[in-house]
Amino acid sequence: MPDTISFARGAPSLDIVDVDGLKAAAVRAFENDPGGTTAYGTAVGYVPLRKWIAEKHGVDVDQVLVTNGSMQADAFLFELLVQPGDHVIVEKPTYDRTLLNLRGRGAEIHMVELQPDGISTDALEALLHEGVRPTLAHIIPNFQNPAGYTLSQAKRDRLLELAAEFGFVIFEDDPYIDIRFTGEPLPTMLSQDQSDRVIYASSFSKTVCPGIRVGYLVGPKARIAEIQKLATNTYISPNMVAQSIVYEFCASGAMAGAVATVKTALAARVAALTAALERELPQAKYHAPEGGYFMWVELPAGTDVAKVFDAAAERGLAFVKGTDFLLEGGENTLRIAYSGVNEAEIEEGVKRLAAAVTACS
Amino acid sequence: MPDTISFARGAPSLDIVDVDGLKAAAVRAFENDPGGTTAYGTAVGYVPLRKWIAEKHGVDVDQVLVTNGSMQADAFLFELLVQPGDHVIVEKPTYDRTLLNLRGRGAEIHMVELQPDGISTDALEALLHEGVRPTLAHIIPNFQNPAGYTLSQAKRDRLLELAAEFGFVIFEDDPYIDIRFTGEPLPTMLSQDQSDRVIYASSFSKTVCPGIRVGYLVGPKARIAEIQKLATNTYISPNMVAQSIVYEFCASGAMAGAVATVKTALAARVAALTAALERELPQAKYHAPEGGYFMWVELPAGTDVAKVFDAAAERGLAFVKGTDFLLEGGENTLRIAYSGVNEAEIEEGVKRLAAAVTACS
Repeated sequence: MPDTISFARGAPSLDIVDVDGLKAAAVRAFENDPGGTTAYGTAVGYVPLRKWIAEKHGVDVDQVLVTNGSMQADAFLFELLVQPGDHVIVEKPTYDRTLLNLRGRGAEIHMVELQPDGISTDALEALLHEGVRPTLAHIIPNFQNPAGYTLSQAKRDRLLELAAEFGFVIFEDDPYIDIRFTGEPLPTMLSQDQSDRVIYASSFSKTVCPGIRVGYLVGPKARIAEIQKLATNTYISPNMVAQSIVYEFCASGAMAGAVATVKTALAARVAALTAALERELPQAKYHAPEGGYFMWVELPAGTDVAKVFDAAAERGLAFVKGTDFLLEGGENTLRIAYSGVNEAEIEEGVKRLAAAVTACS
Repeated sequence: MPDTISFARGAPSLDIVDVDGLKAAAVRAFENDPGGTTAYGTAVGYVPLRKWIAEKHGVDVDQVLVTNGSMQADAFLFELLVQPGDHVIVEKPTYDRTLLNLRGRGAEIHMVELQPDGISTDALEALLHEGVRPTLAHIIPNFQNPAGYTLSQAKRDRLLELAAEFGFVIFEDDPYIDIRFTGEPLPTMLSQDQSDRVIYASSFSKTVCPGIRVGYLVGPKARIAEIQKLATNTYISPNMVAQSIVYEFCASGAMAGAVATVKTALAARVAALTAALERELPQAKYHAPEGGYFMWVELPAGTDVAKVFDAAAERGLAFVKGTDFLLEGGENTLRIAYSGVNEAEIEEGVKRLAAAVTACS
């Protein structure tokens, strides 16, 4: 069997990580601020990075909490806002770990259809009018994981209206925002929120590197203060060394170059992926993403992707089944992550996928 | 008012942190293993560091989980083992955050008297014979926080016997073990456990630096596998950059030099502290610690340390009241952390403490 090609892992390949830039940032972290880098901080995170993030989003520093990765941020937020039996809205499909964590907390989960322009606000509205009263709606607005879709401006506006009217929190989970390689950026819901209804999360995993585990929350001061208490009790302070390195990476301008490298590579990978699919698997349906790591692929109704998964594994190809991102349905869908593979691997991977589909039909 | 001297914070002063060694380790981390350092890992931690820890403790790698600091390790362990209403043994006094987290989980806490040679195993035995059935006993065996006391060999043996007989887990919380500056080291309970009753935690906060936030658990494989699941669901992987830096720091031998520096400095600080107390505050009772960061001080019965605390603050001295480490009692006690202050600051701090005591008597 040939070496396995992974369309499964949502992580960057090493060639698009700025290792030299990170090494230089680490040296500067220890040289420029040895005390702040090596000592305990407080649960708000490394102060200069917190300030940098606040400026990036145009908010007060008290609205920002820097955490050990954005999943840890999610965990704190869910601990604070989601109690057993609470109703929660998620996109259908959505990130499998979010689904797992919300189920773990005993939430009553409502999956609302995700369309190529984002969550169906009509379906959400219908649910609200039926009497469902969610505490939280989890929304991945840009280049959604797993679908790669982006929420339109009109739907962002509508979500904010619904949140204000029905009193729920929008958890705007936005790790991919800076990895847009085509099309026009849209303003965050955070920046358009008039009624303190949005808590925003993002991360440096996609712009710096995942191993650095630095994420953050932005939200109303009172909420952030509550989450700060949880964070203090959990770990006193997040990783100051990592956050100081990220700060030096951002402040030096290395970030801009790193992001440009990532965008150029990912755009080429999407082009290679869609060209290979047209050629090898013309029956596949998808919407080419404008950014991020993922593309959702729908095979003809009746295709059993669970079988294709096994047949692909035999041929040295890994991907994630669509059913992993759903509570039910999606048996003919899969997620392709193109972030960790180069163009040649994409070509070869799609050939293996097509062969696996053929073998199962 | 003069600059405040802090006997409060259990953290090293910057002069005893090997910043240059850390900077060099960071450079090697990015050069020697760019992929492993920058990518997501798994929840077990950075593989070479996990192996280094396993060798240090003479255990299988499957018995080790490297976490984002040992407090996060505690949090996972408590999440797994402590349910509301469970009985838990802690030392009296004990680390305030442990107390807080166990209370937060709704545990039924039994504080058992801590003597200069460790927890009173007689008092624990009496409690067990009364019918108390703890799920967990939290023990800080070396240079305990807050008391600075060390558990004797005889009591280590007795605790292991009691744990086997009464079926509870010993949580051996041992962040200070490598910071022994006088006396003979004692074997860990982990190393003498014949019945898979010990889960051991330690940290690099005291040997590398606190801002690096790397800790770990060692225990029976099945337990570690359960905790690994919790860790995966919480954060996918801990900080690979930080763990790779720690690994390079350890593997290069920089660790040995760093630990020697810390020990020499702390031994001198304890000498300065006890000499100053003899001279300025002869009524204070204490046992000079053989390692670690902390010394417990008892003032004459009737002294109101809450008042002394305020009087000290007015004179530019901070410390932590003994009552913070207890559920009741200890009004005439305090904890002095000598890790973050140099000898001159210790001299001056003790003078301020004595003046504060005089002002309150």
